[in-house]
Amino acid sequence: MTIKIAHLGPAGTNAEAAAFIYQEWLHGEGPNSVELAPCQSIAQSLYTLAQGDVDLAVVPVENSIQGSVAISLDLVWELHPLSICHQIILPIHHALISFAANFGEIREVHSHPQALAQCQRWLETHLHHAALLEAKSTTAILGQLEMDRGLAAIASPRAAQLYDLPILADTINDFPQNCTRFWVLGKQEETDGELISLAFTLPAKIPGVLVAALEVFARRKINLSRIESRPTKRSLGEYLFFVDLEGCLTDQRLQDALAELQTHTEILKILGNYRTIPQSIPIGKSPQAIE
Amino acid sequence: MTIKIAHLGPAGTNAEAAAFIYQEWLHGEGPNSVELAPCQSIAQSLYTLAQGDVDLAVVPVENSIQGSVAISLDLVWELHPLSICHQIILPIHHALISFAANFGEIREVHSHPQALAQCQRWLETHLHHAALLEAKSTTAILGQLEMDRGLAAIASPRAAQLYDLPILADTINDFPQNCTRFWVLGKQEETDGELISLAFTLPAKIPGVLVAALEVFARRKINLSRIESRPTKRSLGEYLFFVDLEGCLTDQRLQDALAELQTHTEILKILGNYRTIPQSIPIGKSPQAIE
Repeated sequence: MTIKIAHLGPAGTNAEAAAFIYQEWLHGEGPNSVELAPCQSIAQSLYTLAQGDVDLAVVPVENSIQGSVAISLDLVWELHPLSICHQIILPIHHALISFAANFGEIREVHSHPQALAQCQRWLETHLHHAALLEAKSTTAILGQLEMDRGLAAIASPRAAQLYDLPILADTINDFPQNCTRFWVLGKQEETDGELISLAFTLPAKIPGVLVAALEVFARRKINLSRIESRPTKRSLGEYLFFVDLEGCLTDQRLQDALAELQTHTEILKILGNYRTIPQSIPIGKSPQAIE
Repeated sequence: MTIKIAHLGPAGTNAEAAAFIYQEWLHGEGPNSVELAPCQSIAQSLYTLAQGDVDLAVVPVENSIQGSVAISLDLVWELHPLSICHQIILPIHHALISFAANFGEIREVHSHPQALAQCQRWLETHLHHAALLEAKSTTAILGQLEMDRGLAAIASPRAAQLYDLPILADTINDFPQNCTRFWVLGKQEETDGELISLAFTLPAKIPGVLVAALEVFARRKINLSRIESRPTKRSLGEYLFFVDLEGCLTDQRLQDALAELQTHTEILKILGNYRTIPQSIPIGKSPQAIE
């Protein structure tokens, strides 16, 4: 059986780099046949998994500079019971890729909105005159660069290498410590990880209800490593809460906490219980990537 | 004395609509002379306040669909002791403004990234073929529309009215219940509001520290109306927490809670104690807006 992994494509995106790490890890786990399935958007990677066209999807959920990737959180909530089976942490380097001889020649910079946001100070300093265009991925425009020296893309140095394109400026991200956290989602629920992600809504207009919900963990000395709120999109001030806990679902203390949490929440979804995949990507080594 | 209010301009942006509401409110409070000072970016509105060139700044902090406005939170943290003196909640309607005869003619849609994000499903359905360009504001491109029928902007119907431009499609936001919350920031600390916003970092690697911090409020039955995390930009997994509480800084119970919170946090900043301005904008009525 071939395991298919959906990710934001085309080849050379950071999501593909994360999917590639996961492919290597699966190969290490046994004689798995693994195939990467590039998608047109982050949303598409999750929809195609929900529809059963692939077995897994790798999507970015959080960046160390820009924070949460809203579309991933919103869809993981919506498409539950998709379940997180692993996470991957990937260092992110952005390069300016273009056939222009200098910055002055560049009229348009194309990239994924997250990449544009992660380079905004650099862009304001060096390419103040250029238009910033939102693309579906960091690599979507790469095929057009050679035809027009006025175009530039922000993508990884690995993408430049894959497509044999010139790097005009390297490491243009505003902060050097730039990492993105990806979730690997599947349809099978795991119960023996070291991190638990869950999300919930609270009954509206009951005072103190968020703190009461979080106290469930505090009283049991269960550590929250992250809490993030997203709007429910119903009305301002109504939130979904995404919480990461350290622990394992087979642990009785966790089970008690979640049972009690259920009494405080309106809707509670366990998004997954998972481990971190050791990161070990050799830059440029991705046979599937060159198509 | 003239009170100057910085906001994202040019005229017709939602930030200007919020600033205009505040101007009207200030007029109601006494014989104030108030002037709006449009800025090129949200960041610029805050920097110009920090430098003392204006007295107040109005910036968006949260939208009911897209969630937090990252740049505002990050800069309010960075530029402390700027202090929130009021909040304004504004209903948001996006319109597609263009001289094109139909959607097929449109090559490029320009708007602020937040507005593009709030209309993404509509854009995918109706303008799949068009390029999406990030602009510094919803109104930045309006002056160029008449010269090129291939261009469109996403801005408020009020902006179309101000500049006398045709609306090709109205209320194109993906969710009808679209509101944005704005903060009015100044340099004087207020202590008699009904909402308190604060932000803090936690000492790294001490388990349970976030819950311990929040318990300070739970134990005193102080209601948290919102909690949001932002990356510290140092390393993944290190966060700034933004918390909104219901209460008043003159209240002894609040003072005790904050004194105790200080013992759990690394850096704690009180961002303001403020009330909500009643929203009452008459569409199109903004004498300063037409320049």
